[in-house]
Parts: sequence; structure tokens; C-alpha cells
Amino acid sequence: MNFCSKCGSDNVHLHLEQESFVRYACQACDAIHYKNPLLVVGCVPVYQQQVLLCKRGIEPRKGYWNLPAGFMELNESVTAGALRELKEETGLSGQIIRLHSVYTARQKNQVMLHFLTRLENIDFSLNKESVAIQLFELNKIPWDKLAFKSNTFALKSYLKTLENPTNEVFISESDDKNG
Amino acid sequence: MNFCSKCGSDNVHLHLEQESFVRYACQACDAIHYKNPLLVVGCVPVYQQQVLLCKRGIEPRKGYWNLPAGFMELNESVTAGALRELKEETGLSGQIIRLHSVYTARQKNQVMLHFLTRLENIDFSLNKESVAIQLFELNKIPWDKLAFKSNTFALKSYLKTLENPTNEVFISESDDKNG
Repeated sequence: MNFCSKCGSDNVHLHLEQESFVRYACQACDAIHYKNPLLVVGCVPVYQQQVLLCKRGIEPRKGYWNLPAGFMELNESVTAGALRELKEETGLSGQIIRLHSVYTARQKNQVMLHFLTRLENIDFSLNKESVAIQLFELNKIPWDKLAFKSNTFALKSYLKTLENPTNEVFISESDDKNG
Repeated sequence: MNFCSKCGSDNVHLHLEQESFVRYACQACDAIHYKNPLLVVGCVPVYQQQVLLCKRGIEPRKGYWNLPAGFMELNESVTAGALRELKEETGLSGQIIRLHSVYTARQKNQVMLHFLTRLENIDFSLNKESVAIQLFELNKIPWDKLAFKSNTFALKSYLKTLENPTNEVFISESDDKNG
């Protein structure tokens, strides 16, 4: 933030409250501009014992496999956002089964919610964001080619639910910057 | 947003993408300022079959009963944020049992995560935010004096889990502006 978005002054300074709460404070008009984590919503899309992944066509992590996800928008619910991202990145519709995992990526200032989602069909379509889309058998997930640690967390947690069926939501407290 | 926080221009306009995605776009430097929902994290604090509520000392909804909650900060995890809010509003520590509910308040552009939390003791302390703090038996919850619909949702969902024990997370899709 270079300028105060309220009064236009360039007398804006980063202010650390209690050593960890980040705010920009305008010295001209006293406006405080809070910075808060962004919500990312996405799916763990399943179809006949397989998981669907998208190969990223854009940075960051271009060329790596990703679960469909993106920033939640205003005026939508968390599940609507997750299904919107699925549609945008794969062309597919799905049915939300339940909230599956919550991943805090502190260094990226993001909180990711992944919903277990049953795909209705697999007539996917490629696009700028997804240059390849593929169903993976659960013993063939490309662990070393996943885009983000949040993918690894969501997928490993999903495998756990198959071994020990549960409605539990898996919550990560990672602070890995590659979240 | 009156001024572009990147270049300081006042040539900033609200832009609705696809009729629902809200962005501020600067005509001078082309910066796009995204607006996204804010995460609120809080607790359903339980102690010996009772639930702890705080009477709000500040607006909005001053004088109404509320579950301890507040905006998630950068550099913390969702559970750390929920426990921080509990501490700030009651002076109490607790132990997170699990994620309990997710409430989308579309009109307020907020997503609330409430965690079921076991209180270690009830040596609470009042403060500016909480002018009264009280443990309520589950059949004596002040339903008509709750501050927000998200409180009602979290507490009614909690009663359901006592009738039918489950690890399920309750997800509301409310768009009530009084979320």
C-alpha cells in the first residue's frame, strides 16, 4: 500500500500491533487499513474411486498438478465458490459431499477450504488455467508433482478417510510458505 | 475506495465482473483491487454441559449475547485465531475439540468458522468488548437475545450434535444480512 485508499495521502505506514497484527495506518486521515487472510475454496473431485487433478497452465507452479481452487468472491457461499472454481478450471459440475480440509498457509496469508465433491461426469474441458486434466487412481497420485502443500495435505487426508471412514474435517496448522 | 492504493489516483471505479465479482479498477495505473470475504474465527466454548456467551459491550448489537469471535489476523492459524479471540473477549483459555460450523454471511462479506472448544476453567474477566459473561444451561440459551444469526446457527447445530453425536461440520448457506 503506497497511498491511503480513503484520502489519497502517501503518508501511509505499516504498523505492527502487538508485534504480529499487520495494519497500514494513514497519518493524514487516521484511517486504518486492515490486512486479513484470504479464503481459497476448492474441491477434492472424486469419480469412481479416482481423483481429478488439473495441470496448471499459469504461474505460480505452472506445470504442476493442482486441485481445482481459487479465491472466494463476495456474494457467494463457500460451497458455491468451490463449485464455481471447479467449473472454471475443468468445465465440470459436481455435488458437494462435505467439507474435507482446512489448510492455513500463513506465509501466503491464505486459508484453503477443500470440499469433497462427487463429479457427475468427466466431460471436462481444458483452458488457460488447466492445460491437462486427468483422473488418478489413488495409488498413482503424482505426489512429487503436486503444485502446493495444501494439495498434499488434502489428498493424504482423503486417503486416511478411506482407511478409516470419518466425517472429520482435517485441519492443518502449517506455516509452510509453499502452501 | 476513493484513491488507488498503488498510484494514488482518484480515477478508481467499482467494476462488476460477470455481474457479481466486485473489483476496484484504477484507470490511471490499471491496478485491480480485489475485494474478498473476511474470515471470522471463534469458539463455541463449553464447560460441564453449559455454553459460555458474552454480552457485547460494543456495536454492532451492543447488549446482545455473542459467541467469542473476531477477524482472523495474518500470521496465525484458524485455531490460534479462535483461541486468541476467546482470550481477548473472556480472558479464558480453552482446548479446541474440532471445527464445528461454517457460516457464510453474504451481505456482510464474512465467513465465520466456529470451533467447539472445551474451557479449562471459568475464571473469566470482563472487558470493553464483553460487559457480561455467563454460562448457560443448554435449555436456557437466550435465543431471542443472541447478537447474530451465526450464533443461532452454531448453537442450534451444537444441540443437534448432542442429540445425534457426529463429527460433521455444519455448513450454512445463509445470505442474511444480520449474519
